[in-house]
Amino acid sequence: MISTQVIPERSGTAFRLAKGETLTVIDPRGEQVSDLLAFNAHDLDEVISSGRTLDYAETIYLTTGHRLYSNRSQVMLEIVEDTVGRHDFLLTPCSYDTFHHFYPKLPPHRGCFGNLSAALEPHGIAPDRIPVAFNCFMNVPIDGETGKLKVLPPLSKAGDFIRFRAHMDLVIGLTACSAPDSNGGTFKPIHYRVEPMGSES
Amino acid sequence: MISTQVIPERSGTAFRLAKGETLTVIDPRGEQVSDLLAFNAHDLDEVISSGRTLDYAETIYLTTGHRLYSNRSQVMLEIVEDTVGRHDFLLTPCSYDTFHHFYPKLPPHRGCFGNLSAALEPHGIAPDRIPVAFNCFMNVPIDGETGKLKVLPPLSKAGDFIRFRAHMDLVIGLTACSAPDSNGGTFKPIHYRVEPMGSES
Repeated sequence: MISTQVIPERSGTAFRLAKGETLTVIDPRGEQVSDLLAFNAHDLDEVISSGRTLDYAETIYLTTGHRLYSNRSQVMLEIVEDTVGRHDFLLTPCSYDTFHHFYPKLPPHRGCFGNLSAALEPHGIAPDRIPVAFNCFMNVPIDGETGKLKVLPPLSKAGDFIRFRAHMDLVIGLTACSAPDSNGGTFKPIHYRVEPMGSES
Repeated sequence: MISTQVIPERSGTAFRLAKGETLTVIDPRGEQVSDLLAFNAHDLDEVISSGRTLDYAETIYLTTGHRLYSNRSQVMLEIVEDTVGRHDFLLTPCSYDTFHHFYPKLPPHRGCFGNLSAALEPHGIAPDRIPVAFNCFMNVPIDGETGKLKVLPPLSKAGDFIRFRAHMDLVIGLTACSAPDSNGGTFKPIHYRVEPMGSES
């Protein structure tokens, strides 16, 4: 019996994901972003790399069949199912500093960066090692002419999910994102499941 | 007398850039990319961050007036002059592995990644610390509908340049890029100058 784990609103967690296991990240209510990080569990200096991944994929919009690469050009995760098809891999996790910049009138929050820092610290990963995250469900369209980007509400509806298969033993960091604009103005939980390959429910 | 430094084709270098100094990266022949990295000279764990920078700039195309941020949300460099207006900040430096992927029939080359690794090693910076670079003159248009990216020849012509002002003491890594597609199929040198602020020639 595989249980569904809950990441409460505006928080984060970290856990091991073994090679061959799948990780399903679920948006239970819709329009909620989840920032994902991955580190090689046996050598934490190997880390998910947006730049390597976008280079190999030749697109900024990753979905089923795309692979997420490390800074050493090794496949860390493969997207094996995706009911949304719009995620972001350009921007770093929201933080105290980005809240100060974008929401100067709101009470500041440590954001996904602070939540990931706290969750990854027991795994031996320092805040300075946090790179661009794979931001599940985050909707960042680009104007191809001007290059301007917008952070719009996610396209995900209640129950939508993205499923990854691990190509190596990993430490995963995962959040329920804390930034108003990224999440349609409200903060919701994220659900996830870790399952042996082939047993996804 | 400020001398112009030469980075020979398919090579790289690293040097200190003091707060307030300007760095001018020049494309002497046209259509030649130069990958740029920046590290806080006094704390090498602080490093240039594409994700923070694109988030604050709200565009993927950076030019005069834009600031390049660190992973700690501090300004490292500001673009103070730019005769081209098209640079890339999405992709990681080309490497032995990317040559293997994109050019399987060509003799492999260590690429900008290998050149930066070798140049930064004497400054105490390990290869795993190399993030997405600011790729001066690299021309990577995005299709806003599909997200697909292309690596096209640079828009730079002979003598074009981009000038940065340092907002902190930095270690800079800089290359003359080694990848065929990024450079219109030929490999040319890159020139650069370091000058005290206000003395640019």
